[in-house]
Amino acid sequence: MTEANRVVQRGGPRWLPAWLQQYRREQAIQDGIAGLVVTVLLVPQSLAYAMLAGLPPHVGMYASILPLLAYAVFGSSMTLAVGPVAVASLMTASALAPFAAQGSPEYLSLAIMLAALGGLQLMVLGILRLGFVANLLSHSVISGFVTGSALLIAIGQLKPLLGVPAQGHTAVELLLSFLASFQKLQPATAALGLLAMLLLWSSRRFLAKLLARGGVPLGAADLLAKLAPMAIVLLSVGAVAVWQLDSRHGVVVVGTIPQGLPSLQLSWPAREQLTSLFLPAFMIALVGFVESVSVAQSLAIKRGQRIDPNAELRGLGAGNLASALSGGFPVTGGFARSVVNFAAGAQTPMAGVISAALMSLVLLGLTGLFERLPLAVLAATIIVAVLGLVDLATPRHAWQYDRADALAWAGTALGVLGLGVEAGIGIGVALSAGTFLWRASRPHIAVLGRLPGTEHYRNEQRFQVETQPHLLIMRIDENLFFANSAAVLDRIEAELAKRPATRDLLLVLSSVSHIDLTAAEALERLHADLGARGIVLHLTEVKGPVLDRLKHAGRLRGLAHEPFVSVHSAAQALGQQP
Amino acid sequence: MTEANRVVQRGGPRWLPAWLQQYRREQAIQDGIAGLVVTVLLVPQSLAYAMLAGLPPHVGMYASILPLLAYAVFGSSMTLAVGPVAVASLMTASALAPFAAQGSPEYLSLAIMLAALGGLQLMVLGILRLGFVANLLSHSVISGFVTGSALLIAIGQLKPLLGVPAQGHTAVELLLSFLASFQKLQPATAALGLLAMLLLWSSRRFLAKLLARGGVPLGAADLLAKLAPMAIVLLSVGAVAVWQLDSRHGVVVVGTIPQGLPSLQLSWPAREQLTSLFLPAFMIALVGFVESVSVAQSLAIKRGQRIDPNAELRGLGAGNLASALSGGFPVTGGFARSVVNFAAGAQTPMAGVISAALMSLVLLGLTGLFERLPLAVLAATIIVAVLGLVDLATPRHAWQYDRADALAWAGTALGVLGLGVEAGIGIGVALSAGTFLWRASRPHIAVLGRLPGTEHYRNEQRFQVETQPHLLIMRIDENLFFANSAAVLDRIEAELAKRPATRDLLLVLSSVSHIDLTAAEALERLHADLGARGIVLHLTEVKGPVLDRLKHAGRLRGLAHEPFVSVHSAAQALGQQP
Repeated sequence: MTEANRVVQRGGPRWLPAWLQQYRREQAIQDGIAGLVVTVLLVPQSLAYAMLAGLPPHVGMYASILPLLAYAVFGSSMTLAVGPVAVASLMTASALAPFAAQGSPEYLSLAIMLAALGGLQLMVLGILRLGFVANLLSHSVISGFVTGSALLIAIGQLKPLLGVPAQGHTAVELLLSFLASFQKLQPATAALGLLAMLLLWSSRRFLAKLLARGGVPLGAADLLAKLAPMAIVLLSVGAVAVWQLDSRHGVVVVGTIPQGLPSLQLSWPAREQLTSLFLPAFMIALVGFVESVSVAQSLAIKRGQRIDPNAELRGLGAGNLASALSGGFPVTGGFARSVVNFAAGAQTPMAGVISAALMSLVLLGLTGLFERLPLAVLAATIIVAVLGLVDLATPRHAWQYDRADALAWAGTALGVLGLGVEAGIGIGVALSAGTFLWRASRPHIAVLGRLPGTEHYRNEQRFQVETQPHLLIMRIDENLFFANSAAVLDRIEAELAKRPATRDLLLVLSSVSHIDLTAAEALERLHADLGARGIVLHLTEVKGPVLDRLKHAGRLRGLAHEPFVSVHSAAQALGQQP
Repeated sequence: MTEANRVVQRGGPRWLPAWLQQYRREQAIQDGIAGLVVTVLLVPQSLAYAMLAGLPPHVGMYASILPLLAYAVFGSSMTLAVGPVAVASLMTASALAPFAAQGSPEYLSLAIMLAALGGLQLMVLGILRLGFVANLLSHSVISGFVTGSALLIAIGQLKPLLGVPAQGHTAVELLLSFLASFQKLQPATAALGLLAMLLLWSSRRFLAKLLARGGVPLGAADLLAKLAPMAIVLLSVGAVAVWQLDSRHGVVVVGTIPQGLPSLQLSWPAREQLTSLFLPAFMIALVGFVESVSVAQSLAIKRGQRIDPNAELRGLGAGNLASALSGGFPVTGGFARSVVNFAAGAQTPMAGVISAALMSLVLLGLTGLFERLPLAVLAATIIVAVLGLVDLATPRHAWQYDRADALAWAGTALGVLGLGVEAGIGIGVALSAGTFLWRASRPHIAVLGRLPGTEHYRNEQRFQVETQPHLLIMRIDENLFFANSAAVLDRIEAELAKRPATRDLLLVLSSVSHIDLTAAEALERLHADLGARGIVLHLTEVKGPVLDRLKHAGRLRGLAHEPFVSVHSAAQALGQQP
């Protein structure tokens, strides 16, 4: 690139993100307020999620600066708040457990590697325009996964919340271990933790209403209520300082936070690291992407905006690369902070840029404020945040609408709780695909007859229709493929057995958009088999692409004639035969 | 069960398998010939496949008696030959490798456990009537798996064939190790092995024709050619005895085979064994079942008979339990021997009963015959048998018909060769399901218009049709579910963007047999979203079950009116609106 180009690039607004080219002053004010509100929430959450991931708390702050800038440049959502989130942090801890001990320098460098690998993978998917992978998980599976993860996180946080030593990877192990060592509960820690949780929960639930009733305008009341978590954090720091809770009563606090901005770094992974982290990094990146896109999409719809999944892949990819570059861990767009950002009036990703700037200021001058912050209060922050992710409406709707979806929800949630996050997501994917295959493997097949006096043919079980004894008309309401071709043949045989006078079998393929090789071979076998018994196979309403493919491969060459255009023309032609 | 009941059961022909109730003398003669021919093939194969599974050769003979009787009682195929087969033996060796050393008593007891577990699992599936699981693998995946396994087996058998020490789990490892120690080739072993292979191959290929040309009647020539493998085995035993190849030239032979029938045994597995062998046993049982059913089905079709997959599950389940009971390893219906059984004229499973009886006679008195049988000759038997399983026609057809099927074949075959049998079958299942999901996630969607002067509406890209500017009619040719609901919404938005005058959107759901929860929610969101932009959503040709489900769950309550019965009535009603 020449110097001239570079000048054009800097100066020319065409090279800036679309939202920045037409940025207006009113937007700046709204973005400023939203950026501030989000930062107030982000500071304690970034410390807390780093702890959840098994990392030093300041790593969470490192992961809350550059990723926001990178997303602002590459992403497509106007209101998504990117940074450390609960589920990705849990998955990070789970992915690294086999490879290094929490707290070791090796653990930190592996966490950075996870972010780098995941970022690269998302970038590559985005460049290849593979954003559709977000659709590989059904809504029920995502909801079950998030709910299971939230409960698993909440159970895990009981340990710092109450100062009880407990360990384990699954919910059951954690709970058992927790109960076994319950008598070691640390009173000061537990009191502080439970109080913080109560305050956080009630401020979230009631504070805005209370302020509004007290005369504060609605919007301001909402905003003030959003500041409560930070107030509670600062109060707890004050309490520790005043009563010396850390040195005298054994309350564990965050401890020294290195002051100053993270230094940039770039390290190349060893080959074994690459092979062992490749899949976990992909899982974290993919789950984060799916969660993030669904949040971004639901917020965009409310303002009539649209999300480009491929831009999201690039935005989150760049965000994770930026996180790795500044010594952070995997990030994505979070549910709770994005909703707050939206509600606080964010208009563009400039709100994220402002958050990043404010976070930098905190790191430059205010880290001392958080050194005596009790871990129990961070645990309370996490628990209150993740319990908001528990979604029991989806399984209720699923149960009413479709038991298979409800089963997928329950299987995924229980899988996460009982076997861990990786197994849970694996079970979810298998259940998503399995449910679909299972349904498609039991196709709906109707025997048709003519509605008297019309050219219309309908299911003989739902309508009063006329049939001819020598002509059996069957409509197959599903694509034909390996999982259902045997079921289709069985059903045809069963109908033929009921109608021994059948001389012509007419298959109506109006609902068939694809026939795979296994099914095409099965149709050929059916044709030969029927022929040997004196029954002629006919097809009708075969879709253009299906017919093209069959013909091109020389399949069904033995058919008596071309497929009929319509059921009626077929029935008329065949009705005239002896 | 009371004693009276039991007497009825034994004596009453109604309790016998159907084929036995009406057994005729002519059948007995044909079954006798087929049983003899199959036994002649079964003796060397049972020894060879036991070796392939890493077990003492006589275990193969143990697995070739009771399982045949059990299948004769419970199975549904008239011509399937059950017993040790190549692919299941390879999978057994691969499954047990992490748990015990080949040749150890522990290894044998684990192999027996694999048969017992697999048998139980098949039995349970059969009782639950879950025979449809055979359809979870597409033809391409099965073919790719069998081909990959056959090549992997053949490469592995180069070691005993040539007397070269080589080891490894994957084809690449085996080949590299083989090349590295090629100079250690054992000349006498290699000469014997290659000669046996040449004779086996040419007798299979040319002997029947040669005999027929020499004046032997065609049928008899075919039968005689089938006896060639046994002749070659006996010749090699003679050669070893005459030239003392074993003691003087280092040719490894089978060694002492315990004389007498296997003793019955029943042992309960330890809990760890159960957990670690559960999945491998299931994989072996399932793959065996799928392979066996497809062989049984293709043979049954030729005689106009039918196979009941649930009876097959019970038959193979009983066979494996019987194998475990008599100290054998996993068995199933094999391709090569079943074809021989069929061609030799087997009419009923009595042919298998006769094979079992003949095998018992061999074990009682003729084991000495096979003690000096060279392993190189067994290796030659295996290689010639498995190369017959290599199927290159399926990938060729798949390539012509559907690239995705060809990809699934190649992925599975290469997966088996490069990563081993378990990874290969996993890749195959993932590719089967993945291909299907991928296709369904890119639904065919047509914009419809009216064929002038008719009530028919067709794809505007394939026909000359009339459209109205304010009415957009779109037909979705695929079930609506999580993997394609986003793609459908995107396409709808794209079409709306092209037609800004649109006031009514009519979705034609004639090809939609199922709408899952994710898609139902997407439709509701579309409805709300369009409503906000002044566009009304209408549905038509909604199938009965789909409509019932949507209504029952209270979905789409906000629609302006009931779905229209036909596109034409909808277009007429909406055409009259301003």
